[in-house]
Amino acid sequence: MQDVDTLWADFTHPIATADDYFASLRGRRMNVFFMGERVPEPVDHPVIRPSVNAMAETYRIATERPELASAHTDIGGGQVNRFLHVPVSPNDLVTKHEMQRELGRRTGTCFQRCVGLDAISTCHSVTFDVDAETGSEYHRRFLAFLRRAQIANVVIGGAMTDPKGDRSKPPHQQDDLDLFLHVVRRDQNGIYVSGAKMHQTSAVNSHWLIFMPTMRLTEADRDWAVVGAVRVDAPGLTYIVGRQTNDTRAVDGGALDAGNAQFAGQESLIVFEEVFVPYEHVFLDGEWAYASTLVERFTTYHRSSYVCKTGLGDVLIGAAAAAAENNGVETASHIKDKLVEMTHLNETIYSSCMAAAHQSKPVASGAYINDEMLSNVAKHNVTRFPFEISRLAQDIAGGLVVTMPSEKDLQNNEIGPLVRKFLQGKSGVDTVDRMRILRLIENMTIGRNAVGYLTESLHGAGSPQAQRIQIARGMRIEEKKARARKLAGVKDAAKRQ
Amino acid sequence: MQDVDTLWADFTHPIATADDYFASLRGRRMNVFFMGERVPEPVDHPVIRPSVNAMAETYRIATERPELASAHTDIGGGQVNRFLHVPVSPNDLVTKHEMQRELGRRTGTCFQRCVGLDAISTCHSVTFDVDAETGSEYHRRFLAFLRRAQIANVVIGGAMTDPKGDRSKPPHQQDDLDLFLHVVRRDQNGIYVSGAKMHQTSAVNSHWLIFMPTMRLTEADRDWAVVGAVRVDAPGLTYIVGRQTNDTRAVDGGALDAGNAQFAGQESLIVFEEVFVPYEHVFLDGEWAYASTLVERFTTYHRSSYVCKTGLGDVLIGAAAAAAENNGVETASHIKDKLVEMTHLNETIYSSCMAAAHQSKPVASGAYINDEMLSNVAKHNVTRFPFEISRLAQDIAGGLVVTMPSEKDLQNNEIGPLVRKFLQGKSGVDTVDRMRILRLIENMTIGRNAVGYLTESLHGAGSPQAQRIQIARGMRIEEKKARARKLAGVKDAAKRQ
Amino acid sequence: MQDVDTLWADFTHPIATADDYFASLRGRRMNVFFMGERVPEPVDHPVIRPSVNAMAETYRIATERPELASAHTDIGGGQVNRFLHVPVSPNDLVTKHEMQRELGRRTGTCFQRCVGLDAISTCHSVTFDVDAETGSEYHRRFLAFLRRAQIANVVIGGAMTDPKGDRSKPPHQQDDLDLFLHVVRRDQNGIYVSGAKMHQTSAVNSHWLIFMPTMRLTEADRDWAVVGAVRVDAPGLTYIVGRQTNDTRAVDGGALDAGNAQFAGQESLIVFEEVFVPYEHVFLDGEWAYASTLVERFTTYHRSSYVCKTGLGDVLIGAAAAAAENNGVETASHIKDKLVEMTHLNETIYSSCMAAAHQSKPVASGAYINDEMLSNVAKHNVTRFPFEISRLAQDIAGGLVVTMPSEKDLQNNEIGPLVRKFLQGKSGVDTVDRMRILRLIENMTIGRNAVGYLTESLHGAGSPQAQRIQIARGMRIEEKKARARKLAGVKDAAKRQ
Amino acid sequence: MQDVDTLWADFTHPIATADDYFASLRGRRMNVFFMGERVPEPVDHPVIRPSVNAMAETYRIATERPELASAHTDIGGGQVNRFLHVPVSPNDLVTKHEMQRELGRRTGTCFQRCVGLDAISTCHSVTFDVDAETGSEYHRRFLAFLRRAQIANVVIGGAMTDPKGDRSKPPHQQDDLDLFLHVVRRDQNGIYVSGAKMHQTSAVNSHWLIFMPTMRLTEADRDWAVVGAVRVDAPGLTYIVGRQTNDTRAVDGGALDAGNAQFAGQESLIVFEEVFVPYEHVFLDGEWAYASTLVERFTTYHRSSYVCKTGLGDVLIGAAAAAAENNGVETASHIKDKLVEMTHLNETIYSSCMAAAHQSKPVASGAYINDEMLSNVAKHNVTRFPFEISRLAQDIAGGLVVTMPSEKDLQNNEIGPLVRKFLQGKSGVDTVDRMRILRLIENMTIGRNAVGYLTESLHGAGSPQAQRIQIARGMRIEEKKARARKLAGVKDAAKRQ
Repeated sequence: MQDVDTLWADFTHPIATADDYFASLRGRRMNVFFMGERVPEPVDHPVIRPSVNAMAETYRIATERPELASAHTDIGGGQVNRFLHVPVSPNDLVTKHEMQRELGRRTGTCFQRCVGLDAISTCHSVTFDVDAETGSEYHRRFLAFLRRAQIANVVIGGAMTDPKGDRSKPPHQQDDLDLFLHVVRRDQNGIYVSGAKMHQTSAVNSHWLIFMPTMRLTEADRDWAVVGAVRVDAPGLTYIVGRQTNDTRAVDGGALDAGNAQFAGQESLIVFEEVFVPYEHVFLDGEWAYASTLVERFTTYHRSSYVCKTGLGDVLIGAAAAAAENNGVETASHIKDKLVEMTHLNETIYSSCMAAAHQSKPVASGAYINDEMLSNVAKHNVTRFPFEISRLAQDIAGGLVVTMPSEKDLQNNEIGPLVRKFLQGKSGVDTVDRMRILRLIENMTIGRNAVGYLTESLHGAGSPQAQRIQIARGMRIEEKKARARKLAGVKDAAKRQ
Repeated sequence: MQDVDTLWADFTHPIATADDYFASLRGRRMNVFFMGERVPEPVDHPVIRPSVNAMAETYRIATERPELASAHTDIGGGQVNRFLHVPVSPNDLVTKHEMQRELGRRTGTCFQRCVGLDAISTCHSVTFDVDAETGSEYHRRFLAFLRRAQIANVVIGGAMTDPKGDRSKPPHQQDDLDLFLHVVRRDQNGIYVSGAKMHQTSAVNSHWLIFMPTMRLTEADRDWAVVGAVRVDAPGLTYIVGRQTNDTRAVDGGALDAGNAQFAGQESLIVFEEVFVPYEHVFLDGEWAYASTLVERFTTYHRSSYVCKTGLGDVLIGAAAAAAENNGVETASHIKDKLVEMTHLNETIYSSCMAAAHQSKPVASGAYINDEMLSNVAKHNVTRFPFEISRLAQDIAGGLVVTMPSEKDLQNNEIGPLVRKFLQGKSGVDTVDRMRILRLIENMTIGRNAVGYLTESLHGAGSPQAQRIQIARGMRIEEKKARARKLAGVKDAAKRQ
Repeated sequence: MQDVDTLWADFTHPIATADDYFASLRGRRMNVFFMGERVPEPVDHPVIRPSVNAMAETYRIATERPELASAHTDIGGGQVNRFLHVPVSPNDLVTKHEMQRELGRRTGTCFQRCVGLDAISTCHSVTFDVDAETGSEYHRRFLAFLRRAQIANVVIGGAMTDPKGDRSKPPHQQDDLDLFLHVVRRDQNGIYVSGAKMHQTSAVNSHWLIFMPTMRLTEADRDWAVVGAVRVDAPGLTYIVGRQTNDTRAVDGGALDAGNAQFAGQESLIVFEEVFVPYEHVFLDGEWAYASTLVERFTTYHRSSYVCKTGLGDVLIGAAAAAAENNGVETASHIKDKLVEMTHLNETIYSSCMAAAHQSKPVASGAYINDEMLSNVAKHNVTRFPFEISRLAQDIAGGLVVTMPSEKDLQNNEIGPLVRKFLQGKSGVDTVDRMRILRLIENMTIGRNAVGYLTESLHGAGSPQAQRIQIARGMRIEEKKARARKLAGVKDAAKRQ
Repeated sequence: MQDVDTLWADFTHPIATADDYFASLRGRRMNVFFMGERVPEPVDHPVIRPSVNAMAETYRIATERPELASAHTDIGGGQVNRFLHVPVSPNDLVTKHEMQRELGRRTGTCFQRCVGLDAISTCHSVTFDVDAETGSEYHRRFLAFLRRAQIANVVIGGAMTDPKGDRSKPPHQQDDLDLFLHVVRRDQNGIYVSGAKMHQTSAVNSHWLIFMPTMRLTEADRDWAVVGAVRVDAPGLTYIVGRQTNDTRAVDGGALDAGNAQFAGQESLIVFEEVFVPYEHVFLDGEWAYASTLVERFTTYHRSSYVCKTGLGDVLIGAAAAAAENNGVETASHIKDKLVEMTHLNETIYSSCMAAAHQSKPVASGAYINDEMLSNVAKHNVTRFPFEISRLAQDIAGGLVVTMPSEKDLQNNEIGPLVRKFLQGKSGVDTVDRMRILRLIENMTIGRNAVGYLTESLHGAGSPQAQRIQIARGMRIEEKKARARKLAGVKDAAKRQ
């Protein structure tokens, strides 16, 4: 336990505000790279900073709207940030989703803290189940960890997606055993893990990471059945921040060209090289049979978390309406109709996520989990509708979204006045404000935050086919066939089941 | 009050069972016509009977699954059929929707009792509001009416859609004033109304009708602002049952050709010719300003009631799966994928309706109403997805759905054996059972119950454009624009609102 | 040859007009059944007659618009009906498609003669190829047959789809060998074939049938590799006419209820019981390796023939526009927009079919065949767009499409006036005319001609998955990958191919 | 005429090769700006160069595949580059479209030369018509201009889209009259024009520009009814090159990060400040009534030119297939099915464009113009299908498309090996090649060339609503209504038309 106390020694002062959060990120010794260069202080890197800002909103909202973004926990943390609260009622999940939509509206991007929440919610019930069946003490360890995290109010990142290598082979048959994260050795104090996690949201902006297996495992994959928590600055961790569309607009064109200069998402590749995890922070170690349960519960939580995209949808619908107003065409029937269609699609996503929360059910640990079928349905709609909303936003906005001069052109004495003269919209609309709205639409549909609004909506929490497999499993087709046969007058329809 | 007691004299024995219900329909003197002929006893008419059967299921389910299909009411009826229970909590609406889906599964068609439930739920709150503002006594009257109806366990039909004539003119400017139902005279006992209601679900199978205005009214339309309850056999009422696709299969081809021989829907044109309504059964009379509220509340309830179509969807998905199994192709990847797509669309509808129930809110009378935006979104999906589910069902089923010989061909000694020989599917599947499933798919996609599954899904509770108008009203576009402007960096974005 | 001359003896007077055609159908001894009863004179059967009328239009148009519907043939027939002309230029296919669309417009249904044209076009080139490789004389026989048919101007039906039984087994492994049509014995004069053909368009309305195998065959299926021509009244043939949605409206409700009283389609199950085919009318007999070529060529022709559905689309778009006009809402922006969408989808189908004709290529016999990829693409759009066009038509038309009283109600003295009073639309529009248009929309979207417009559009000429398989074969994916690799900068991209 | 000869003096040596073309761009005195800085030699600017490369392919293909990309002209140029050839037969348009698709395949982007071709094709017939009606000599001037252009083999850019300002006002009522390009003064030698053109494809890469009005004009807009040709380096012209998504990847990340390092598109804002046009190069001057004809013909040509996007589609389909192969999942049924769907949509676009070419018709000048309805239908599909193709490509490719490390990370000694280790796909696939393909997919779906593949597909040649208006005009709705009424049995249907 000595070790663990030491690991938490830096977190004795709770992070209460966004400013505390920014301060908490400074001075850490992390191996972070971006575009081939080591980033000594990520919080101050202009490309990374917007993603830190988005995360900081999860602190700001907790104080501004505590009824939405905080919760009382029985685990020991008292009134805690909702991102550290395991849901123990349908209302917890409902409120979580409302908070996620609101943060989507505030930031227009991925605010990155959901994956950690969904990871702790999953670990809560899975460790409980393992303990109940095997007499292990994972759940006690996990609760102790979570209590500390709640009191310190840290950001926990969740890390699940392994590189996978040859998709046709299980972990233990890969040419390179590190293509899935695994235990490479162990000693009396803990385990050492190697491997990597891909596309990890928020990793650089987190304080702790929980790593988990990415798929169903077999007994031969025992060493890959490992869950644990590590500080993001643990020795052996390296972060390679991925390139995003238009990431360098943060530095090359000014705030206007960025579209949304303040907020962005973040994904990175995390490499684990013999990273030590003390046993007190190990929450699964070899119990391979629970990997599939863990993945199913995590994806069930996380697929509904994509309700956040309806917050982004709100922004994009608003931006399209503002663009139409700036052009003086807001009353055209086809414009109004497109805004209605965008809203209809956006609210359809919302309704699926909310239904999945309201119809959540408890598991043995007392945690509530979204309805599995509805959560998959919700996410599956997220893999489709934002693309159509985005197309309609571009339709309303016009071609200038992708042909507009730079803010630097505005600043040039020779051509700045020409740009202002010819980009004038409806009388009374400030030309630069008109440009800002168009850049925001670019940002969300074909720019930096389209990464989160579109591509991540496809693949985050599982690609479309993953949802289809889950829907197939849950569709109760034999029951449906029996209903049909009965109505059709097929004799002995009941017996056939 | 004497009059009113008389009107209820026939209902002194509560209708407890499906058999009671069938009995209650016999011996009434109603003016019912179908295909140009007077129908003396509709319950025994072979074309109408399947619609009576479907309604009877609303009685059967109440005894078989009381936790689902009955409810305790404070209005005085005690434990009553849920179709007579005004929802007073989100859970009431949630359970209502589960009941509707289950009835959809049981019948594979429109079971017709929702419109009455949604009518009483609406009248409950609107009469309350009118009384509160004007000192009228409509709410007391309405509660007294409803208490009697609950105790008697009668079927109440709701009647809203007027013929409308020239859509560009309000009621009082129509060439024929009867094109909207209105008060034509009044005396000391009550009012007399004339006009008609179109597409009325279940009218012939009901015991009472509540009539309501169909749209927003102005002061000049005061005589059209009328709500009341009448017995279905009141003097002056005439019913013309509409033709449905394949309606005569009930008589011309045997049970097999009908596809779903037991259950069907029903719509009729109800003509009112100076129908007397005692004041005790008048729930609005001239308060034109409340017409729009009444219509909005009714459509909000009723649009979510289209969750019933997911029950039909369950049957159709099951039928398609059974057809594939009968053909021996159930493991083909494209077949499985189509079943998943059908399920995904069906559950998306379900999720929207359920979210609209869970997020319902109370109004002054204490009644809970579905969330308006989500209810419109739910119904708008209903105007689209059943058509695609239907197309996919036909895709899986194959062309035989529309080219199959008649059951009468099976019975012919000469060709019956040929039909059996050549319509054989996978070994071990009974050929006639294979045919039954195909006829059921025909029934639901291009036959009698496609009327309810497809066309009624488009127009019931308002055509698609009606939902788009409501979505436009509720989309809070100024708030969304402000969000976008703030993120885009537009100065004074807040002030512009 | 004696036999063959006899077989043609009834056709010495060319069928020049629609009246000639009607006359030619009478007095034949065919085994035709419908709904369990023998039909002695199909042309006079009220349910079958509309399908005969549709076929008759193929004669009428040839005289009214010879530039469109006739062609000069080098085969010996001179100027012949285009339905008997093997296309020998792109323009022949282009004109064929224009004729098909026009006939779709005239009839609003399937006019049934395309399958025979596509059968003779296919036989022309396949027999040529077989002769060239094997020294057989099928092509000579076929030309002789076709010359007679052209001179007599008969209707040739094409019969391809076998019952198939267990889809996982080839013909020779079926429990019942008759589940695919095959040669059961042969003598010095000819062959005897048994089996059946399903969903056969126009069979009862034809004079001759060409039967063909339905899929790729192997050597063990040699006896199933058979093509030949028989008179429709040949001994051993039995026809069971399939039931269609609302087929009995032709008798039970009057012309109005039928929606399109004049025209309809027709499919039947044809049973072959040891039907004799003289060698002179055998065009393939055992050359199993050519079956796949034959099927591919036939489907390539026939998939483009679905351009006819754009003619039906024209009618349905017009009907929807007329319905809107009758309601007085034709200038509403959402109505206009829906008509545009319907037109866009309809013309997209047209464009794919026409491109497939313009880009046709000749084969060895000199016949031109539609571009295979584009023909598959065209048909694949036909499996989707008519469903959406139909949904939009119902949207515009309103719910009355499925709830309207019968024509018999109009004729009733008591209720007829009520129906007229309340179904009044815009002032000046005849109420019965308004009803007629709504019945036509019912007919095409959920009535008798929806069989052809919707379900047949899915399955005719091959179900959707059949087109996807052909598209996959023709997509030249290796070439596309090489293009991508080259642009991506992959070294040796060319070598990888 | 002296002036005009001088203007052509720099073009005495025909541009025969791509190298000639590059040389021809150097040393010109143009006012070109990008990101606030003057660009002295655009051809050597790393961000602009890929767009020059794409244009250069139009020269390369003419020598490599002359049968496709050159044509004989009767105007005087002999065998000329097809981009300078006015189509005088359907085959000219068919071959043009095949060339466009091939160039799309070669470059994976907009090669920019179509707009000039469509401009000259339009001017050919419009000047002919004006001369015929008014006795002007525009056509002679135009032919003389075109002959010189053909001989010199220059790139002609077409410039149409005005800034438009307040969309509710015509040109002469705008607050700033320059918001539409117009004649500001004239002298004995020529006219002087001021204004601007937005989103101009290829302007910086061209030698000459033809400017044209952007919409229907009225008599009061006479000064805005002007067409003429100017050298791109004419005094008074300023070019502000627009920012594109990921444009700076050309400089900041290496060839890999760019995805398609060699080729890109280009749009700029062209400002005209009293630019002189000698009368010999004026092709319309005040004949306002012809503006609408000119716009309609131009858009009819140009909408079909979007067939080029099917070439991009070929590349993207290939890239998705290569990505699947690299992941070892190319045989998964859902992957194959998505590739088929992408191909189906891509070929549907192709078919519409090709049909519009094959069914082109001549106008008075002898030029052939694509079928107007089909061209609008083709472009309307282009506003939809590339978005779905793009979504499916991202689906197949996986999330790495937007989270992948930079090429610079590969080059870093510390993390380069880690990236290689963990981004390994199927055994035997080079990891960097795998990354290249993913970057290409990023480039086309959310990167630089998504500008052309997606947003330009929406708005180029007119936004979606513009096509809907044209489709509405061409849909012959009265004829369709008459067809419907006739089939429905409405009396006097013919008379109503």
